[in-house]
Amino acid sequence: MSLINRLDANDADFGQQLKTLLAFDASQDEQIEQSVAKILGDVRQRGDEAVLEYTQRFDHVKANHIHELEIPLADCVAALNALPAEQRKALENAADRVRAYHEKQKTASWTYTEADGTLLGQKVTPMDRVGLYVPGGKAAYPSSVLMNALPAKVAGVPEVVMVTPTPGGSRNAIVLAAAAVAGVDRVIAIGGAQAVGALAYGTQSIAGVDKIVGPGNAYVASAKRRVFGTVGIDMVAGPSEILVICDGTTPADWIAMDLFSQAEHDELAQAILLCPDAAYLDEVYASIGRQLPNMPRADIIRTSLANRGALIKVRDLEQACEIANEIAPEHLEISTENAAAWAEKIRHAGAIFMGRYSSESLGDYCAGPNHVLPTSRTARFSSPLGVYDFQKRSSLIEVSREGAQTLGKIAATLAFGEGLQAHAESARYRLD
Amino acid sequence: MSLINRLDANDADFGQQLKTLLAFDASQDEQIEQSVAKILGDVRQRGDEAVLEYTQRFDHVKANHIHELEIPLADCVAALNALPAEQRKALENAADRVRAYHEKQKTASWTYTEADGTLLGQKVTPMDRVGLYVPGGKAAYPSSVLMNALPAKVAGVPEVVMVTPTPGGSRNAIVLAAAAVAGVDRVIAIGGAQAVGALAYGTQSIAGVDKIVGPGNAYVASAKRRVFGTVGIDMVAGPSEILVICDGTTPADWIAMDLFSQAEHDELAQAILLCPDAAYLDEVYASIGRQLPNMPRADIIRTSLANRGALIKVRDLEQACEIANEIAPEHLEISTENAAAWAEKIRHAGAIFMGRYSSESLGDYCAGPNHVLPTSRTARFSSPLGVYDFQKRSSLIEVSREGAQTLGKIAATLAFGEGLQAHAESARYRLD
Repeated sequence: MSLINRLDANDADFGQQLKTLLAFDASQDEQIEQSVAKILGDVRQRGDEAVLEYTQRFDHVKANHIHELEIPLADCVAALNALPAEQRKALENAADRVRAYHEKQKTASWTYTEADGTLLGQKVTPMDRVGLYVPGGKAAYPSSVLMNALPAKVAGVPEVVMVTPTPGGSRNAIVLAAAAVAGVDRVIAIGGAQAVGALAYGTQSIAGVDKIVGPGNAYVASAKRRVFGTVGIDMVAGPSEILVICDGTTPADWIAMDLFSQAEHDELAQAILLCPDAAYLDEVYASIGRQLPNMPRADIIRTSLANRGALIKVRDLEQACEIANEIAPEHLEISTENAAAWAEKIRHAGAIFMGRYSSESLGDYCAGPNHVLPTSRTARFSSPLGVYDFQKRSSLIEVSREGAQTLGKIAATLAFGEGLQAHAESARYRLD
Repeated sequence: MSLINRLDANDADFGQQLKTLLAFDASQDEQIEQSVAKILGDVRQRGDEAVLEYTQRFDHVKANHIHELEIPLADCVAALNALPAEQRKALENAADRVRAYHEKQKTASWTYTEADGTLLGQKVTPMDRVGLYVPGGKAAYPSSVLMNALPAKVAGVPEVVMVTPTPGGSRNAIVLAAAAVAGVDRVIAIGGAQAVGALAYGTQSIAGVDKIVGPGNAYVASAKRRVFGTVGIDMVAGPSEILVICDGTTPADWIAMDLFSQAEHDELAQAILLCPDAAYLDEVYASIGRQLPNMPRADIIRTSLANRGALIKVRDLEQACEIANEIAPEHLEISTENAAAWAEKIRHAGAIFMGRYSSESLGDYCAGPNHVLPTSRTARFSSPLGVYDFQKRSSLIEVSREGAQTLGKIAATLAFGEGLQAHAESARYRLD
């Protein structure tokens, strides 16, 4: 069996082959859906009591009051202080860089005044309170705490509430340390659909939030979809993907490792390389075979590459860019000479890494941009998580008496045309 | 029976009364859900053929090919030319103002370069193709065509495809005229869930879009929710609302008519007035009674005001602003002296109308800002429809060789901490 699929973009049936490779069944599990609906209804109705019951049932943590499940901020600071110096410094450096990048995303309110004195504008305000879901167990990544909490704090959200399950009572120290670095305002040791419900609807002890962000398992994803509308949510992410465009000048071992770094996330992760140089693709293939046995997560990588990975021979870099726009990848590495020039041709990608030194892993942790990115082709219409996800806009309209004379006539004409007479009369009352 | 509810914000149980007043059951109809799921599945699988069948069944329009359902742009221009001069001018003036306001919302790409040569930034690009749903029959508003299509065109979307059902073959001339004014690129006479499915999945004759916007009935709303993820959608809107804060200095008839202008939309629409002056509230009540019989849509207004409307006595304007932030209304009129100063205190509202000349109806048609606004308290976390809804962002990362030395160490440390060795190795390969 092949280590990774080998395709040629100029085969007659390449279009169909690519479609098959990219296909991903996001169908929902009916049993999970029903279970989540019940938990949410229960939390909505009974509040704290229901949250405590589910926490005991699922996490085996018994508490008589939500306060017992609060993790004091002092514990987070203590966890940070207890980290090995190098790890602490890495976390703080990463946070500084992520904060600096996101500062550039802030948008300000604006207004303008027309000749007749009418003022128009847009007021930009942060949300009041945001919830951050952090998974328990192995999938708890401190980098994810930084990437989700920092844009909210940069946006000016006064209260970021983190929820994270502590199965059997075991806390993840580095996640708590990251919460301290990111400036999270409150931490509660609850998880699952019950935590999402508590954040969305509010309970006696947990104030409802305006938006819930952060990754989670199928239960959490289902709960987020269901509370959407009551609160905002971030995108429900599909499996992670990388697309590498290479001209054959980057060491093959580097590119093979870049593919691994995506594939090691999970068996459904997708790593694809596009290159016009057939000999180079052979080199990468050989490197994969050589390096794979040494990887601690070799089994996951092997399955991911065999089922969903591909080395694709393209005619030229021009064609590679066209395919990239079709795929609209979450991560795109352009590992070529003059990478910035090729990046000009890219219309759809979550993040574009240019040049051979820009490995995706640098962006995942500390380059500055967010690592929460649109997956499964949604980069065609959505964006990386950012400060703009925690700010919202209100239109500002102050019509002058003079302005009302012009606008009132236009509005009345259009309102009558739509059969909305009260609209028309309301506008006409403002005419002198 | 009272024409409109009368509440006092300083009653002991006001909190509960307000909650009851605002409550709105958005529960979904199971039969609609099932029917929509079937239609979408069918369109996804059989494409044009299914769209043609459903169009014949639901709209009683028979066609053998989608091309027969295309409405040529020349027909839209002809519809515009056939409008009475005053109506045409009003439509064009409104479009000019909406376009000018939305031009200010455009965001540009940016980059910055660090001391070691590492470049970071954000690339902003328009979507490739956007679908605009326009309802058939009476709910077809030309203003809505402008408000949905213009931000997409300002964003630079090359192709805006409008779908609108023509039941029994009857076209809405003023909607087609608005499409011509807004610069819509293609118009197809299809509607319902089948049109949403065609736009989302694409068919033999209809290219799939990246996002679908625009209002519709319960079938359309359900279909939009279901295709979300495959494409982007705008918010699924609840009933429209207005909240008026008045200090008692605006003529009572004006304010009563402003409440009507919301209530006439539909029986679930909500119109609420907050005022510290009890005598003024009585005046507005009397004005409602006096003016209501003259309104062509009196029945709708009467039901809306009696069930969902309220005149609320507040302690002072300070308290009115607090209640407004709690309600987070779609439309907020601050009909007071020094309205701009009170607007400073508003954190959550779709659009803020300041001063007695700024009636909501002016904003609905021609002031400039969008009339597609967040309803049902979602202004706490979402924004008016805007140019930003048709642009998306890609992160840009070009790490220099020197930069990789710093970033590689941070990333490797954090990656090892998370147990992701391929991430760490990929970063370490970039170290000299």
